[in-house]
Amino acid sequence: MLEDLKQSVLEANLDLTRYGLVTFTWGNVSGISREDDLVVIKPSGVPYHALKQEDMVVVDLDGNVVEGNLNPSSDTPTHIVLYQNFPEIGGVVHTHAQASTSWAQAGKGIPALGTTHADYFYGTIPCTRPMTESEINGAYEHETGKVIVETFRDINSNEIPGVLVNSHAPFTWGKDPNEAVHNAVVLEEISKMAQQTYQLNPVISSMDQVLLDKHYLRKHGTKAYYGQKK
Amino acid sequence: MLEDLKQSVLEANLDLTRYGLVTFTWGNVSGISREDDLVVIKPSGVPYHALKQEDMVVVDLDGNVVEGNLNPSSDTPTHIVLYQNFPEIGGVVHTHAQASTSWAQAGKGIPALGTTHADYFYGTIPCTRPMTESEINGAYEHETGKVIVETFRDINSNEIPGVLVNSHAPFTWGKDPNEAVHNAVVLEEISKMAQQTYQLNPVISSMDQVLLDKHYLRKHGTKAYYGQKK
Amino acid sequence: MLEDLKQSVLEANLDLTRYGLVTFTWGNVSGISREDDLVVIKPSGVPYHALKQEDMVVVDLDGNVVEGNLNPSSDTPTHIVLYQNFPEIGGVVHTHAQASTSWAQAGKGIPALGTTHADYFYGTIPCTRPMTESEINGAYEHETGKVIVETFRDINSNEIPGVLVNSHAPFTWGKDPNEAVHNAVVLEEISKMAQQTYQLNPVISSMDQVLLDKHYLRKHGTKAYYGQKK
Amino acid sequence: MLEDLKQSVLEANLDLTRYGLVTFTWGNVSGISREDDLVVIKPSGVPYHALKQEDMVVVDLDGNVVEGNLNPSSDTPTHIVLYQNFPEIGGVVHTHAQASTSWAQAGKGIPALGTTHADYFYGTIPCTRPMTESEINGAYEHETGKVIVETFRDINSNEIPGVLVNSHAPFTWGKDPNEAVHNAVVLEEISKMAQQTYQLNPVISSMDQVLLDKHYLRKHGTKAYYGQKK
Repeated sequence: MLEDLKQSVLEANLDLTRYGLVTFTWGNVSGISREDDLVVIKPSGVPYHALKQEDMVVVDLDGNVVEGNLNPSSDTPTHIVLYQNFPEIGGVVHTHAQASTSWAQAGKGIPALGTTHADYFYGTIPCTRPMTESEINGAYEHETGKVIVETFRDINSNEIPGVLVNSHAPFTWGKDPNEAVHNAVVLEEISKMAQQTYQLNPVISSMDQVLLDKHYLRKHGTKAYYGQKK
Repeated sequence: MLEDLKQSVLEANLDLTRYGLVTFTWGNVSGISREDDLVVIKPSGVPYHALKQEDMVVVDLDGNVVEGNLNPSSDTPTHIVLYQNFPEIGGVVHTHAQASTSWAQAGKGIPALGTTHADYFYGTIPCTRPMTESEINGAYEHETGKVIVETFRDINSNEIPGVLVNSHAPFTWGKDPNEAVHNAVVLEEISKMAQQTYQLNPVISSMDQVLLDKHYLRKHGTKAYYGQKK
Repeated sequence: MLEDLKQSVLEANLDLTRYGLVTFTWGNVSGISREDDLVVIKPSGVPYHALKQEDMVVVDLDGNVVEGNLNPSSDTPTHIVLYQNFPEIGGVVHTHAQASTSWAQAGKGIPALGTTHADYFYGTIPCTRPMTESEINGAYEHETGKVIVETFRDINSNEIPGVLVNSHAPFTWGKDPNEAVHNAVVLEEISKMAQQTYQLNPVISSMDQVLLDKHYLRKHGTKAYYGQKK
Repeated sequence: MLEDLKQSVLEANLDLTRYGLVTFTWGNVSGISREDDLVVIKPSGVPYHALKQEDMVVVDLDGNVVEGNLNPSSDTPTHIVLYQNFPEIGGVVHTHAQASTSWAQAGKGIPALGTTHADYFYGTIPCTRPMTESEINGAYEHETGKVIVETFRDINSNEIPGVLVNSHAPFTWGKDPNEAVHNAVVLEEISKMAQQTYQLNPVISSMDQVLLDKHYLRKHGTKAYYGQKK
């Protein structure tokens, strides 16, 4: 079942290594079939080079395994909460990529400092609040999803397709698994640039809002003119 | 038409990936035929690995597509302004390479701190002023070119073949597309070195002018003696 | 003798280059047969690409060569002290990997700043005290082992499988040579992240203890649920 | 003539790219035949991938080309001064490698901060004084050699086989071209580590002299015991 989605989830997981976003098994990608309310996700703790299409695990929105012989990623409940609350997304990525994880560990959101950021993220990429003791000791991965959703109460998750989970690491998303990986790569790049920018100029503030609008809207929305006509 | 130029523009675009200057499609190279007043440039948003010679787009100096089935790079108007105002250049490069983009985001020019810089750039590599709201909301890419030209009002664009566009990213140029890429590689290297130098010595000032003269003129101008006789 | 152990020690040594942890011959891995009280270790100063299984040196716990034509690593006495004092470990790694060596040179332990750290190291990775003149001028490599053991007087070496030797470099260990290398890779990654985290937030303190518990125990101990059932 | 030396100089030059020490043609290696008082050096400005053994240029100690159709490296006079003043060396390397060049640009010597440094360099790696106007405008590359020699007036060039030329870049040397490259790689590694160490601990001072002695003498001199018996 869902062979096409499994294939794209497999390829997106392999892209994590291609783009240098993962060490060992420190990352996972999922995709959702909105028609079937089923999520396809990487199995837990399996190295990327050994992954095959049939290893992908299918779970329903309650987290029950519907198909597959392996345990799904331990982060599956987080992915599910994101799919339930961000209705337009089709893929989710979690990594411990170095630069963006460092921002998460620092407990700081990444302000938009230049057009590279503005081309993909329409403003500050937020960092969640620390999780509470009861959240951590409860259904931890589910609660991780909920604290992300809480962080986006006043933020449009389509315009800011990623987040830093405090003391942990980034999640990104997109319309499909491939775009979610794309956004994970962008997040890592702008995490590095933002760190270097602050080293060069510790008092820099966010970029001009007019320039942010220009670049984001040049690539997104009805007046976009970047790339080829589709 | 312009098959040779298309080929050298294609190769220069592929060099961007070879030298690690680009992520995804974040960079473009063009070249000009001064004889024909025609510019050859990368198509917008096409991945480098898929680029073929016949994908290169030919535009005139008003930005009209003269040949090619794809949209030219969205940055084409910036390239054209540079060709119109810097009459000796034959190639232009734009990237979002990490270190030089960080300097652009920091809003700071890169002072000459050593001979690596001096071998290619005869002084500080400037950062433009921020663009105004009307420039951004007007013919943005054209205005980007104009603010670069304004920045070089008192700077010789042959001696400083590159610039940082404030809150954005670098442009470099050269006598042909290949040399423009060469200068983009140099700019990225000296951006990294300058950042590290300031970390080691925050109060360092520009290098000695006599040493700057010596190194720049050892490689450029009528008394150059570096390399093989041509 | 001990052919399987030699093969796993060989492969673990080769993994040091695969994971970018070594320059030249700056690293070594050993493994122990607890049954035989014999240690298998890399020969001293032999480049990795030239290593063969039969080059691995077998020594007893007094450091006498039991089999092999080459000198064992000059760090062999340190490895032996660790095997004698940490009875559950089966492999030891020493490298001069860049980021973790920088922490060792700085004389600072690495506090747990995020879940990447917590997944493998259950608290601060300690840095030893400086060695005394008589330790350095005595049986230096043996004393290096002893100062590590002293550092772990109140630390569980199974829960913190690594250490920074002051002004020197890291050692890591694990249940076998492969796991010891795994921990060396993790240590290098979290060394980089911790450095970047402090640059972004110089006043950050250790992560929440509840979150540290959660992540460490999610992967270790009787209630672990990460990965596949074994 | 000197075919063996040419081959080892060629290979040492190619090693510069293998170890990531050079961009474009920014580096050169030479070797000397002490018997013949002849130096073999890379030709100026020729890319490494195009170098062949017969391209190596033979010069005498006055800098005259004795054999070869290409111009020798423009840095040849610096190499010659080093050979004339450091009688035990057999190879010289010059690069603009990123981290060590940044220290040179910062105008700071690299103190011994750990055993990685101590294994190869027996104390601080010095940075030369800035060159004077008359030195720069005179026989510049010759004078560069002289300022290096002046820097080593009270330093043993066998024990500290490298230097940072102020506002410029590093030179290293060794008993042959291969060892000179080896020392260039080490210098780059410890340049990175020293920079990171200072970021972690800005008030760190040089390592303990006893430990420095121990590590340097473990690998060098009559009581060395690292590696295999020769």
